Amino acid sequence: MDVLGEPAPLQTLIEALKRLPGVGPRTAQRMAYHLLQHDKPGAAQLALALSHAVEGLLHCERCNGFTETPICATCSHPKRDESLLCVVETPADQNMIEASHGYKGLYFVLMGRLAPLEGVGPAQLQFDRLLARATDGLVKEVILATNFTAEGETTAHYLAELLRERGLKVTRLARGVPAGSELEYVDAGTIAWALMERKAH
Amino acid sequence: MDVLGEPAPLQTLIEALKRLPGVGPRTAQRMAYHLLQHDKPGAAQLALALSHAVEGLLHCERCNGFTETPICATCSHPKRDESLLCVVETPADQNMIEASHGYKGLYFVLMGRLAPLEGVGPAQLQFDRLLARATDGLVKEVILATNFTAEGETTAHYLAELLRERGLKVTRLARGVPAGSELEYVDAGTIAWALMERKAH
Repeated sequence: MDVLGEPAPLQTLIEALKRLPGVGPRTAQRMAYHLLQHDKPGAAQLALALSHAVEGLLHCERCNGFTETPICATCSHPKRDESLLCVVETPADQNMIEASHGYKGLYFVLMGRLAPLEGVGPAQLQFDRLLARATDGLVKEVILATNFTAEGETTAHYLAELLRERGLKVTRLARGVPAGSELEYVDAGTIAWALMERKAH
Repeated sequence: MDVLGEPAPLQTLIEALKRLPGVGPRTAQRMAYHLLQHDKPGAAQLALALSHAVEGLLHCERCNGFTETPICATCSHPKRDESLLCVVETPADQNMIEASHGYKGLYFVLMGRLAPLEGVGPAQLQFDRLLARATDGLVKEVILATNFTAEGETTAHYLAELLRERGLKVTRLARGVPAGSELEYVDAGTIAWALMERKAH
């Protein structure tokens, strides 16, 4: 897309918007026009929110999630079960588990998954920090809740070995048919899993 | 999506990102995590670009496009044909026409199209400014280059009446089969248009 005719601040804005994940040149242009034409307060608000977030957010020393304080609210909550540690890929995954109201333990947020082709290995994901966290003497069980994608599964397998070597109980979220779904519309791989891991009823 | 557990600056950033067109809660969350985890310089750059664009960009007094100066570079270009005025919906449309290298006249950018259901009428699009611009005595022909969508066509029809009343020659971009396309894959409506508007060869 030729944007040579655009004034410099507009070109710079379009270039900056292109750094957002999933935003290509056309979308960036549309976003820039929209903000400047219809939502200048929104643009100013976004600028401020970005600055505040960049300056104000840290990684929690215990769970690696985003926080404003050295230890996040979840990790410093007195009612959490310190014997359970749930490993997730992203804060979004953590939110989903929290939303299920089925877990009262603590978390470790990898902020990614093993992806050798993208140069993301154990060092980038700071597995040493996770291992130090899991071997604090209080954690008894590590629940691997990485995604059920190829990369998430690889990450889970790799972590399981490291953690079992250190004498920890390692579990994985159950695989099966999603709640409320009709079998007709569930993919064959999920059905195969659900059959293999069937339980007495 | 429950983001109540997120620290305040992160929640504020996600809310601000949701104001971008086409960005829902999930995408906003993914964008925020990406910027904070993998591209803090990108976030700072976007904040700066937004501030600069909000403060530095004006609407050109003549064409209504974005500019840093009261009259934009295109409108003040000495080699442009002042007898031709091309009306487009957005700066992106203007860029596409410029990229065709087939037009040497001037522009008027509506920054939208008539959409009564969204509350966008002739007043919102400042049709009075377009009419004043088109009746400057130099403009002889107004080329309507709004989109070939229902709303773009409505806008073109409405403008055509207003402009013809004022004694101006009004034209519309030709409709037909796109360059390089195979008839088998062109939609029937376009074929019907191309047949109706067929030309001697």
